[in-house]
Formats: sequence, C-alpha cells, structure tokens
Amino acid sequence: MPSLDFQRVLDEINAEIRPQLGAGGSVASYIPALARVPPAQFGIALRTIDDQEACAGDALTPFSIQSISKLVTLSLARQRMGDGLWQRIGREPSGSPFNSLVQLETEQGKPRNPFINAGAIAVADRLLTLFGAAAKADVLAMMCTLAGEAVAFDSEVAASEAGSGYRNFALANFMKSFGKLDNAVEAVLDLYFHQCSIAMSCVQLARAAGYLCRDGVHPWAPDVSLLTERQTRRINSLMLTCGTYDAAGEFAFRIGLPCKSGVGGGIVAVVPDRLTLAVWSPALDATGNSLLGMKALELFVAKTGLSVF
Amino acid sequence: MPSLDFQRVLDEINAEIRPQLGAGGSVASYIPALARVPPAQFGIALRTIDDQEACAGDALTPFSIQSISKLVTLSLARQRMGDGLWQRIGREPSGSPFNSLVQLETEQGKPRNPFINAGAIAVADRLLTLFGAAAKADVLAMMCTLAGEAVAFDSEVAASEAGSGYRNFALANFMKSFGKLDNAVEAVLDLYFHQCSIAMSCVQLARAAGYLCRDGVHPWAPDVSLLTERQTRRINSLMLTCGTYDAAGEFAFRIGLPCKSGVGGGIVAVVPDRLTLAVWSPALDATGNSLLGMKALELFVAKTGLSVF
Amino acid sequence: MPSLDFQRVLDEINAEIRPQLGAGGSVASYIPALARVPPAQFGIALRTIDDQEACAGDALTPFSIQSISKLVTLSLARQRMGDGLWQRIGREPSGSPFNSLVQLETEQGKPRNPFINAGAIAVADRLLTLFGAAAKADVLAMMCTLAGEAVAFDSEVAASEAGSGYRNFALANFMKSFGKLDNAVEAVLDLYFHQCSIAMSCVQLARAAGYLCRDGVHPWAPDVSLLTERQTRRINSLMLTCGTYDAAGEFAFRIGLPCKSGVGGGIVAVVPDRLTLAVWSPALDATGNSLLGMKALELFVAKTGLSVF
Amino acid sequence: MPSLDFQRVLDEINAEIRPQLGAGGSVASYIPALARVPPAQFGIALRTIDDQEACAGDALTPFSIQSISKLVTLSLARQRMGDGLWQRIGREPSGSPFNSLVQLETEQGKPRNPFINAGAIAVADRLLTLFGAAAKADVLAMMCTLAGEAVAFDSEVAASEAGSGYRNFALANFMKSFGKLDNAVEAVLDLYFHQCSIAMSCVQLARAAGYLCRDGVHPWAPDVSLLTERQTRRINSLMLTCGTYDAAGEFAFRIGLPCKSGVGGGIVAVVPDRLTLAVWSPALDATGNSLLGMKALELFVAKTGLSVF
Repeated sequence: MPSLDFQRVLDEINAEIRPQLGAGGSVASYIPALARVPPAQFGIALRTIDDQEACAGDALTPFSIQSISKLVTLSLARQRMGDGLWQRIGREPSGSPFNSLVQLETEQGKPRNPFINAGAIAVADRLLTLFGAAAKADVLAMMCTLAGEAVAFDSEVAASEAGSGYRNFALANFMKSFGKLDNAVEAVLDLYFHQCSIAMSCVQLARAAGYLCRDGVHPWAPDVSLLTERQTRRINSLMLTCGTYDAAGEFAFRIGLPCKSGVGGGIVAVVPDRLTLAVWSPALDATGNSLLGMKALELFVAKTGLSVF
Repeated sequence: MPSLDFQRVLDEINAEIRPQLGAGGSVASYIPALARVPPAQFGIALRTIDDQEACAGDALTPFSIQSISKLVTLSLARQRMGDGLWQRIGREPSGSPFNSLVQLETEQGKPRNPFINAGAIAVADRLLTLFGAAAKADVLAMMCTLAGEAVAFDSEVAASEAGSGYRNFALANFMKSFGKLDNAVEAVLDLYFHQCSIAMSCVQLARAAGYLCRDGVHPWAPDVSLLTERQTRRINSLMLTCGTYDAAGEFAFRIGLPCKSGVGGGIVAVVPDRLTLAVWSPALDATGNSLLGMKALELFVAKTGLSVF
Repeated sequence: MPSLDFQRVLDEINAEIRPQLGAGGSVASYIPALARVPPAQFGIALRTIDDQEACAGDALTPFSIQSISKLVTLSLARQRMGDGLWQRIGREPSGSPFNSLVQLETEQGKPRNPFINAGAIAVADRLLTLFGAAAKADVLAMMCTLAGEAVAFDSEVAASEAGSGYRNFALANFMKSFGKLDNAVEAVLDLYFHQCSIAMSCVQLARAAGYLCRDGVHPWAPDVSLLTERQTRRINSLMLTCGTYDAAGEFAFRIGLPCKSGVGGGIVAVVPDRLTLAVWSPALDATGNSLLGMKALELFVAKTGLSVF
Repeated sequence: MPSLDFQRVLDEINAEIRPQLGAGGSVASYIPALARVPPAQFGIALRTIDDQEACAGDALTPFSIQSISKLVTLSLARQRMGDGLWQRIGREPSGSPFNSLVQLETEQGKPRNPFINAGAIAVADRLLTLFGAAAKADVLAMMCTLAGEAVAFDSEVAASEAGSGYRNFALANFMKSFGKLDNAVEAVLDLYFHQCSIAMSCVQLARAAGYLCRDGVHPWAPDVSLLTERQTRRINSLMLTCGTYDAAGEFAFRIGLPCKSGVGGGIVAVVPDRLTLAVWSPALDATGNSLLGMKALELFVAKTGLSVF
C-alpha cells in the first residue's frame, strides 16, 4: 500500500472547504447552548494505526460531541455485558428520523439500534444498572483514557438539554411504559445528557476513536484490548448502517466508511486497519449531519481512495 | 312517542347482566389503584329531560370516572374558548389505539380529537392557561354543580396514575417538543390525572351529563345554558365518532348512541332530547371499554328502540 | 313535530349556494371522464317518509354517483349474506385517506370498513361469489327498483376508470395477495368500476336511498322490507362514522347526519324516520367531498334543525 | 496478505453445513415453482481477482436467482443512465419488509432503494424505456457475458410468478398511480418476473459478480470496464446497507460483507479487491434469506478474517 502524505491531504481539504463556510446548513437550534455556536468553523484531524497524526483548520477547538458519545457508551456496555446487550436493543437501520417514536410503538419499546436516541437511552439505562451512581464518572473516565488527556462535561450544555429535551423525555417515558428501562427516567436522561455534553476537539476525537481501527486495541496501550476483533468489526458495521441518522445509506453510498455523527457538527470516521478521522463544522444539513463535514469526508475518500468497498 | 317504563327496563337489564358478572374481561391493570377494584359489580342509571330517574344494580357505588371526565373538560374549554380550541385539536376518529404516539408524530403534535389521551392532555393545557392555579378546583366545581352534589378527587388514584403513567408523560413531552403545550408538562399532567381520578356513581354521572340531552341547558337550572344547541350537538357527534377509543365504529354500529367510556369501567350515553344514561362494570374488553357496560347499552337500545339512527 | 316547508328550504339553499359556484374546489381529475364535467352546477332534492318531494337547482341532471353506489352494494350483500359479511370487512373509521394501502398491510388485507375503496372492492368480490356473471345486472336492477325508474351504467366512465384506476388495481391485488378476494382481480374491478359509473340525478338518488329513512322498507313498496330495522340503523351508523372518507368526523361535527359521498360530487344524507336528501356539485374539497354539497347540507341542518344529535 | 487455501476453506464449510440440511427454515412457498425445490441442498463457490476458483457441495446445480438479478439490472441501468437513475429511486435502507407498500405511500411512490421489490420494478421500468422490446434479451445477454457461458430464463418460474405475484402487481400499480412508472404495468412486470427466473449455479454466480470485486472491470475482459471504480463501490455499499431485505443490519453485523440474497436461497457476497462468493441453500429464515447460506458466510468470514470492517 503506497504511503500517503496525510498532512498535505488535510491541508488541501481545508483549503477547499473553508471558502464554503457560512454558505449553507444551519446550527442545531433545539438546544439553546448549541444554537449560539458560530457556524463558520471547520476542523479535521486523523491518527493512523502507526501513530502518525495530521490536522488542519480548527482542529484544536473543542465542541459538543453529542451523539458521537454513543460510540463510547456502546463500547463500554458491550465490553461489560457481552451479547446480553442485544436483548433490549436491535441492530437494524431504522429507516426513520433519529428521534422517531413510531418504531418504538410498533416494536414494543425495543429500539432499532444503539445509535438512534432511543437506543442510546437504553444503553445509558444498562450502564446505570452496571455502574450505579458512578456511571457518569465512569463514562467520562473512559473518554479521558481514550483521548489520552482530560476532557470534561459541559454542564451548561447538559442543563440546556435537560431543560429543552422534551422529545428525549418522551422517548424515555415511552420505553419505560413498555417496561424496557430499569432505572428512573430522570437518572437515565441525566447520564444521557451528560455524555452528549462532553466537549472535545477533532484531534482528541481522532485519537479517542483509535481502538476502532485497531481491532479493539487501546489507542495508547498496545497490550490492552478494549474489545475483541469481532466486537470491534461489529461496532464498525453498526456505524456504517446506522451511524448517521436517516442518512446512513447516503453516507455509505457517497463515503463508504463507518461514520458516527453528532448534532454539534462533529463526525468520526473509521478506515479499518488504517486510521481514524474526525471532522467538525457546526452547520447541519436537513438530516442533522454536518454539511461541510460530510463534504470533507467525500474529499478525503476521493483523494486517498480509502473506502471499505 | 309512547311512554316507557324505564325502571322496569333497567331492572330487566340488571337481571340479564348480573349472571354474567365475572365471566369475561379484566380490570384495568396499569394503574395499581384501579387494579384492586372487585370486578363483579354492575350499575345502571338514567335521567330523562323531564327529570324522571331510574336505576338498578350498583348504581350508587362511586367509581373512578377516568376518561369520562374528558366530556366535562372539553365542555368547559369549549364554553370559554369558542372555536379557538380547534386550532390545536382535531375532530377526526383516530383509527388507532387511544394512547398512540404515531399520529402525533405524523401530524406534528396535533391530537386527532379531544377524547384520545393526547387530545385530553391538550385540553387540560388550555384549561391551565385559562384558569391558572385554580384549574383543578374549577374542573371539580363544574362537576359538582352538574352532579347536583359534592364529588371529589380520589387522591390515591391520582397519585397512582402519576407514579405509573409513563405513556401519558411520553405523550405530553412529545406534544411539548412540537410546541403544542403552553404549560409545564408536570402541571398539565397533574390536572389531567386529577380530573381522571374523580369518583362518581352511575346516578351522579347520569345527572351530570344531563346538559348533553338538553341542548346545552344545565341539568338543574333550566334557565342556564352551559353550551349552545349547536355546540352541544357537536360534542354528541364527537362522542359518537371518537368517544370509545378504537371501538367507536363498533359502538355506533351496535348501539347507535353517543357514548363516552373510561377505563374505570363506566360509560355515559346520550339519547338527544330524551335522556342520559350511565352504566358501570369494571371488567374491560380488549378495546378498553367495559364489557358488560357495552352489553347493557345494547340491551337498552334493543328494549327501548332508542337510537339516533 | 312542526311541519316544514321543504320546497322553500331547498329554494333558499339553492339561492345561497348558486353565487358560490366556481369559487373553490376542483373537479376530480384522476378519471378523465369525470375531469370534463363543468364544475358550476348544483342540485338538491329530498323525499320524506310520507312521499313528499322537493328539489331545486340542477336536481334533474344525471351525474356519476361513484362511491354512493357503495351503499347499494353493501345493502345487497348484507341482505344476502347476513353477518358473515363482516368476517372480511371491518366496521371502524380508517383514520386515513380513502384509498390508503397502509392499514391493509398492518391488518393483513382486511379493509377497515365497507365504504373505503378497499372495503367496497371486498364487497364487490362477495357479490360476484353470490351472483356470478349476473352480478353487474343485479346491482343495476336493484338501483333501478330503488330509483323507481331506469338508470344505467355510463360505459365511458367505467372504461375511463378501468384505464386509469391504478390505485384500485393496487388495492385489489394487495388484498388478493393476502388471500382476501375469491374472484379474479379483473372481474372484481369490472363490477366495481361499473357500479361507480351509474349515472343518476339528485331526485333519483333521494328516492333510491329512501329505505334508509324507512327502517329498511322499500321506498316504493311499503310491504317489502329490504333490510331489517336493526340492519338499516347499522348502515346509517356506518355512513356517519365512515361515509365521507377521511372527513367523517368533520361531517358528523358540522352536519350530524349519516352521509355517503362520491367523487362525482354527489352526497346522500339520511334523517332517520323523516327523509332522505341528495345534493350535488362537482367541485371537491381536499378530502374528496363536494365542497358546496357539504355547505348545502350544513345550511339544511341549520334551517331545519334536523340532526341526529 | 497471507495466501489462503480457499478450496480447503470451502470444503470445511461444506462439511460443517451439510449435517444441518433440513433442520430449519422453509422453502419460499408463495411461488409454486419454487415451493417444489428440495430443501436439503447446499452449494458454495468463489472466484478471486486473480482468477482462482474453488467450490464445494451442490455448486454446479442451477437454481432460481430471483432478487440476485437486481444486481445486474441495477448495474445495467447505472451504466446507461448515470446519476439520472436516482431521481426515481432512493438509496436508504427501508427498515421494512422487502415488499412493503407503506413507505411507497408516505414517499409518493418513490422506492427507498433499488433492491427492495418496488425499487427493482422501477429499475425494470427504466430498462424498458432504454431498451424497448429488447430489454429482456439485453438483460439475459449481459448475464451470459458475465457468467462466461449461456444461462437462460426459466419460463415455468416466470409464469408461476406472473400467476401468483399479486403483491408485485400491487406495488407496480401503486407506483403507476403516482406517475412513477413510464411503461405499462404488465410489460414492466414481465421483464421483472423474467429477470428473477434466471437459473444459475453458485459457480456461475461467483463468476458473474466478479466485476464487483474488480472496481467495475469485466470478469473475463480485463480491458473492459462495465462501471467506474466509484460506481462499483457505490453498488457494493448499497448491497451492504440494503441487499438482504430487512436483515441488512444483521448481515452487516454478523458477516460484514456486501451481500445480495434471493428467495431462491442464493446469496452473492463481495470481498472488494479480493473475490466474489456465492452460496445457495433453498430453506429460508423468517427474513427471506437463506438460513444455511447465511451461516456459511459467517463461517467463511470467521475462517478467513475477510470482512470490510
């Protein structure tokens, strides 16, 4: 496999994307604390399995990772619970917007997959049962060790979500009505809103996701496996089929890499056995994914030829 | 129109229904306080427009009126708001179980009609805006004046619903997420759970619903109109098309009278310009309506020939 | 009950409606033969149980009765099959547009009620099984005896529907795939398209529907019962809850009479024990019901106080 | 990349699968000609990009390829129409069973993706417009050149589908009602039923699909590109997200390769830049995919470590 000059690639992408800043999409408005983020920002960073790093643009600016946190909570639950996790959560694309209650109703409160909101709330419930009052601290600790440095909850964002997250309250109460949550709705959502509020930069995210391109091996500790090779592949496959809300087919079609996006404008992508990549730009398209983040990923694939297909 | 000996009719119905007590259906189990009600009870009562009364069986036993309360809150909101009420609430049968979130989602948080749970919660929100902190007291006061005597909230039932009503919390938060509730979810549901908890007997309910067979005139004050003739007809029509959850078509087909049922096992029926009728038996069929209450209404129509069709 | 001067009432309605002709709605466009009907026409006619008649406007102009024919095929099937008819057809409002396939799918090919297209196609299948090759002639013969004079299929309209009725072909094939049609799709739809193509005037329709206000007694033969009193009441109740597509709740609310409409712009209404009424104006509202026909019915109820509620 | 002894791998898989023949699943019953296939058969074959071949079991027995034909019609349409193809067909997983009409209705007759039946019927309509009366012959000719030898329609199977394919008639008429098919329903379905009836063996299928692991290059003509590299990747991504009906998530999760299945019991899988693989066993699981075929693919991935993730 020919060596690629990744820093040059990211610089080129940054040069092509930056003139488009401010030209389309809109910042997530349903959470007041997110609505205030200036939209004209773009960052990109990657880290390879042999620890090369490259970055460009606003790659060091922290942002709210939001749904990208679902990767870490899923990995933590998977590590501790094994296949028992799948008794309450499915593995199929939803074919519906990310916060839909319809499928929950027709499927008796069992979420379609762990990356829609209902599924991530169910994962949070599992973590609360596993870790009790320490769950929030344990999720944050795992993120710190993955990032290789301290990261933190943004308590203003968490409070903002708790004060306006009526749809998540609806989802959680609906699952509770089907007997599919073991813990109190308020406690489950407190964990969920906190995990979503974690603030990280592209550089930190590219590092933290490193176990996903390393068959489960810890990004900073080559002799520690967080997940087995098979478990890791399966998380990558879930990212590809379900990681970007109702646009998973479009991402697979246009980009062809496992991706997980968040409404803060971040997207993490995995090139198995090669590298992990993080992009960020706050303005979202109609599907809730970063408009320029997705364009940057398309450029990356076109320039490098890296794709799973 | 020939005179009917209503007391004899109700005695006959009671004699036919009583042997069937305990033979089918089951008491509502999702609210602990309701699940404890002994199922083998049956009462029936009516009051005509010329103030004749008749009753039989357990007609004086108070029970939880539950959704029958939606008649009174709708009437109160209608009286104070006029047609503005219909901006947030539709008037079509739902074609779905009474607590479905699906239609709320496809119809942007606007409930199909005021008798499904979502619609009644929206009415409660309107009453809170109209009456503020006095709303609970005002609803109860209206029920007392209609019944002609004191009736009360059953605070144990209200607390039981608040502690287990996850689906109603889901519905209310979902509407709130669409911006369709003006007041806090907790306050709206507090009013809703209290109105549902009111305890009344068949005799009291038959009296209280009297304005619906009198073109809107107060059952105890012939010179006071609570609603206009047209408004009253329209509430009767809503009862016929939407008053009995997903069995409205079946009720119209088999009984042919405007009816409103509750999961406490009560059903109120209206013969316009003639009388109002209340039946009660706690065991419910699969649609959430009183199994023997519905049979009693069929007998009443067969024996008297009274039907709107 | 005071005597009403019905001719004066219909003249007043005609005078109020006629200036609004051409101002809104649009003629059904999906069937070419219907799309050519001049929209600025309005007729109204009624016939009482004591054989008084009144009419106004274009009451003698024949038009395509379309779905109003479902009343007669249902009555014919009901007469011959008894309650067995309800094994394949439900009795609940659909809560969905009249030609929806969604409920057919979730309910295994069983139509919600006999007045949505799927339900009427299922009724046509039953008639084919009962009458074989004579089914078309038998339906027409029943309509002629009800109208009291000869009426006919409009073969151009029937052919136009057969050539463009893709959605009805979809519905019929879908039911066939669930094993819910016994006869060939083409034969069932041939009967269905022919029954819909019958051309009649308001005067003829008001006469033909007369058995529905006479407890099932033939409109021209007082000693012949087509249906029992109970069967007749139940058809009236189905009209009220399901007779006007997805606007049944709105019709019940605003008009309060059992009605059956057709996309040709006709509507038949029943005042039980009093009269039957037919209105016609070709321009339809968004729900597929005659815009001015519905307004005319509202005026009729307001002027006469006749309503079932 | 270490060399793998593929013949040994397939022999092992055959040895493990064969004892399970007849133990579960059931042959597709809705097409009479398929219902007669003896279920206790299993074959597997592969061909690498450097033209190595291996096979085991019933790898030379021809079977009905059914939906696997959608790969070839999609590739042909894509080759001739470019991106215009996507105006009438989406690219998202459906989240619903493969023959659902529900999404067609909510999405105005636009199929979710080219691999559900509705989408493949829309592709057939495009091919009819492109090739006219020659379309059937052109599809078969492309399949022959891909297989490297003559293959044929099974006219008994095609007739069997035409005589019992009510749901496909429903789908096609439904799309036609939305104006989304340009050709006559009968002609479109004649092409569709014929493409599905093609009979091929595992060996032939593994060869024919070869362009999908060669970045679009013809499996027998290294200097002919059927599709560009990007187009080929995108078809592979569609296979992964949408190629196995409502079990695409499960396939991605457990197998991690682009796959396309058919109700004849065949499955084609692609290891990009390495090989194509075909398995066959007629008994299907509840999702309509070959029960033992899927198990065989899991064994293949476990034994070889080949997966895109």
